[in-house]
Amino acid sequence: MPSSLNHGWVHTITLTPPALGDNTADADRLEAALKKALAAEAVHMGLELIGSLPDQLRQWNYRATAVLFRESATQGVLTHLAAPDTTDRLCGLAVDLGTTRVVLRLIDLVTGDPLGETVFDNPQTAVGPDVLARIHHADTADGLKHLTTLIVDGINRYILTLCSQCEVTPSSIHLAAVAGNTAMTHLLLGLNPRWIIREPYIPAVNRPGVRQALELGLNMHAGARVLVFPNVGSYFGGDLIAGILYSDMDRREETAILVDVGTNAEVVLGNRHWMMACAGAAGPALEGGVTRMGTTAGPGVIDRIDFNKDRADFDIHTIGDQPPRGICGSGVIDLAAALFRSGMVDIRGKLVPDRCGDRYSLKEGQPHLTVVPAGQSATKKDLGISQADLDSLIRSKAAMYTILETITTSVGMQPRDLETFFVAGTFGAYIDPASAIAIGMIPDLPLSHYHSLGNSSLGGATRILQDPECLERIDAIRDNITYMELNVNQEFMNRFSAARFLPHTDTSRFPSVTVPVG
Amino acid sequence: MPSSLNHGWVHTITLTPPALGDNTADADRLEAALKKALAAEAVHMGLELIGSLPDQLRQWNYRATAVLFRESATQGVLTHLAAPDTTDRLCGLAVDLGTTRVVLRLIDLVTGDPLGETVFDNPQTAVGPDVLARIHHADTADGLKHLTTLIVDGINRYILTLCSQCEVTPSSIHLAAVAGNTAMTHLLLGLNPRWIIREPYIPAVNRPGVRQALELGLNMHAGARVLVFPNVGSYFGGDLIAGILYSDMDRREETAILVDVGTNAEVVLGNRHWMMACAGAAGPALEGGVTRMGTTAGPGVIDRIDFNKDRADFDIHTIGDQPPRGICGSGVIDLAAALFRSGMVDIRGKLVPDRCGDRYSLKEGQPHLTVVPAGQSATKKDLGISQADLDSLIRSKAAMYTILETITTSVGMQPRDLETFFVAGTFGAYIDPASAIAIGMIPDLPLSHYHSLGNSSLGGATRILQDPECLERIDAIRDNITYMELNVNQEFMNRFSAARFLPHTDTSRFPSVTVPVG
Repeated sequence: MPSSLNHGWVHTITLTPPALGDNTADADRLEAALKKALAAEAVHMGLELIGSLPDQLRQWNYRATAVLFRESATQGVLTHLAAPDTTDRLCGLAVDLGTTRVVLRLIDLVTGDPLGETVFDNPQTAVGPDVLARIHHADTADGLKHLTTLIVDGINRYILTLCSQCEVTPSSIHLAAVAGNTAMTHLLLGLNPRWIIREPYIPAVNRPGVRQALELGLNMHAGARVLVFPNVGSYFGGDLIAGILYSDMDRREETAILVDVGTNAEVVLGNRHWMMACAGAAGPALEGGVTRMGTTAGPGVIDRIDFNKDRADFDIHTIGDQPPRGICGSGVIDLAAALFRSGMVDIRGKLVPDRCGDRYSLKEGQPHLTVVPAGQSATKKDLGISQADLDSLIRSKAAMYTILETITTSVGMQPRDLETFFVAGTFGAYIDPASAIAIGMIPDLPLSHYHSLGNSSLGGATRILQDPECLERIDAIRDNITYMELNVNQEFMNRFSAARFLPHTDTSRFPSVTVPVG
Repeated sequence: MPSSLNHGWVHTITLTPPALGDNTADADRLEAALKKALAAEAVHMGLELIGSLPDQLRQWNYRATAVLFRESATQGVLTHLAAPDTTDRLCGLAVDLGTTRVVLRLIDLVTGDPLGETVFDNPQTAVGPDVLARIHHADTADGLKHLTTLIVDGINRYILTLCSQCEVTPSSIHLAAVAGNTAMTHLLLGLNPRWIIREPYIPAVNRPGVRQALELGLNMHAGARVLVFPNVGSYFGGDLIAGILYSDMDRREETAILVDVGTNAEVVLGNRHWMMACAGAAGPALEGGVTRMGTTAGPGVIDRIDFNKDRADFDIHTIGDQPPRGICGSGVIDLAAALFRSGMVDIRGKLVPDRCGDRYSLKEGQPHLTVVPAGQSATKKDLGISQADLDSLIRSKAAMYTILETITTSVGMQPRDLETFFVAGTFGAYIDPASAIAIGMIPDLPLSHYHSLGNSSLGGATRILQDPECLERIDAIRDNITYMELNVNQEFMNRFSAARFLPHTDTSRFPSVTVPVG
């Protein structure tokens, strides 16, 4: 009896050998078993694979290890065939295609275990630091080709690094999943993202689907397939779909919210029945993101700050316990919360010179607060925050809160009704929710309601390679999302204005936050 | 409103342009319309095509001419997109991939009209004249690669010839359909046909399906697709499936028979409800085919012969009315019939010296009958037929009749019950049914029951490119055929022995044939 035993995408297939009364061809015999295993109406095989098939099946006594993938709801694809008792590693590659950083993770397709990871700066940064600059560059002569080559070559280079680290070869990679925002995805695929930023903001493609690694120029097994996560629109990309998948919010009965602050602020609200999404590019102040203000995390960078009333000084923590040389995003939010709690900034976010004491100064005519004096810093310069930085942070936090208020209100909820609040990305991994609540950036929920997902884009890409059912889920997620354009209308601006205070003009929304007496 | 107007595989598509409230990506917007046009669940598009799409759709005001094809029952593929008012020729290529000869026909995909045709000898003939020799050669070092390169290069060379003849370029060819026997199909696809000739006779693939021209190395448009006709088994190839399609017997209520004598003798019996097939490779005497005995048709070759009793001499017709230099297959059958009618051969097919007169001689110890004496022939040698040739012809005709009897008997019919008898290929185009009946090769049906299909393999390949519905039909035909192994058992041998007489031991089966008094 033909049978199949599967571990994720890897199936061990046993076929009935042919006979005079059962003369179905080898490829068709195998396809019939694979169709059954995948519940697909057709399973595609490349000619090279079919060419090796007859001798292999006879040698392996009509048993084989098959690596499968899905090309569509009804169509499967056989990407690789090996001996039934193969000891070769069969690998998958999960790719978080970030605007700034790219993360590659190798996984064992049989066990689903991660084998290793590598991170590198997106080489397109040399051309343009942000999405917009790259979209414009893509429109110059050979600009698109240049950007595509940069990222494809970059991934190929780090595939080699990762493979050597894991003691496999690139030809061991049979499946890959790539999650990135809409523009980064377009650039990887060699598609000009020109119309993404022009009204009415139309991507070239929403569902790039499953492609041949060869078509993308990626260095994997010749028959490897690459799933490129779908986007919902120009400002809601595959990275978010991957995040939703990773959070499992599409399977939960209760309503959850997922917030991803990377280059953009993207928010999804929903449950297994419905999903609402919006992206913060429409927020007037969040552009560039909160993390932009500070220094990129690294040794010596302050990631935790509190104000110690007893010592009347800041308690700081630096990464690697090195001498301080900057403040990263989470540190800036901690700092703003500490300044507010101690009365050194008022409810408008303005530095109060009397309260700041000798930490207050004017630098280039602008108010400035020193956290670490030059004598104690690694840079031999004062480390601190200017009024302009604080104003920018206030605008960002107000935009964030306004977006959360707008999306929850649109479905008849309030921010404080949320029982599960997923925070994705670096932002989610490092910020202290208590600090973010203190400045009114996120709702005043019990801290236990906050869950940091870490790199949910990479997590979602990994899941696809571990669990075949996820492929159907991402299509369902994509189709299920209602994307809400954040129109910057009068109501949005009213909400935004109210959210520009610390924590908010309506302090009843933040009962846990004690507003210091001015 | 999105709409679509089609001419075969070419559709003129009109899309609703995107708007702020309707931000589906360009590729997905187009795919939705194409899915509807094809009634498919997904329509695949290459990245290169998607890359050009956004600017093209805007330039063409969201209208376009689309060349589509089907990859499976549920999946379509967009092979080319052009302006809605394009004047470019959109071409299809039908290929009859014969063991001996290959025919290419270019058609206009919009009108369905043939634009031109070219014929060339299969370049693999240099390696091996017949299927078996090539299968063995494929098993030598680099043999398979050599054979595949020969045929792919040959087709590419004659694509250039055909295109220049029709004033188009190979990049105008967007779809192709190839019909060949199982072994020739394998060699074109680079698949080793080794197991086709070894029990239990298993092809590498039955349904190669729709492939990229690039995967096959064929010189057409970069996005072109090639349908390779499916086979039923090692001895029943895609050429026959194409023939069935071309004959329309799969749509007829009444039972018809289709006989194709090329390298093999292949027979299909059936109607819209069922189909029964067998192939003459299992017949002990038909191997090599009837046509092998004579000279290949060409100027000066005798294609018609009759015996004129009044003149007591042969009436001959040569191709191009040139001086005679050989006898082709149809001439040999005419000759056998004439010899039998005039009593120059007896019912066993033996030359009767008394009746042959001075046309009879012994050449190298073998009885021989001269048709054209050396003085009148272009070769300055006697043209005629030896007893050995006659014996071989008798075995062939007996095998053919036995096959027809076996297949009709298997469904409770007799050969004489057939109302429609399709004869395909060169054999069908040139033989005189009356002669073939006279020697008992084919049943004694009214001549109006015989229909010559010509090159039905090429005809079927052409139909696929003209009529999208044919793609489903070929799958249905393939799945509907019951392939009958012609076991050379005692019953077969008894029938064969009875059929080795002229016209048959049971003369009641051939009432129209007057058996001369010996």
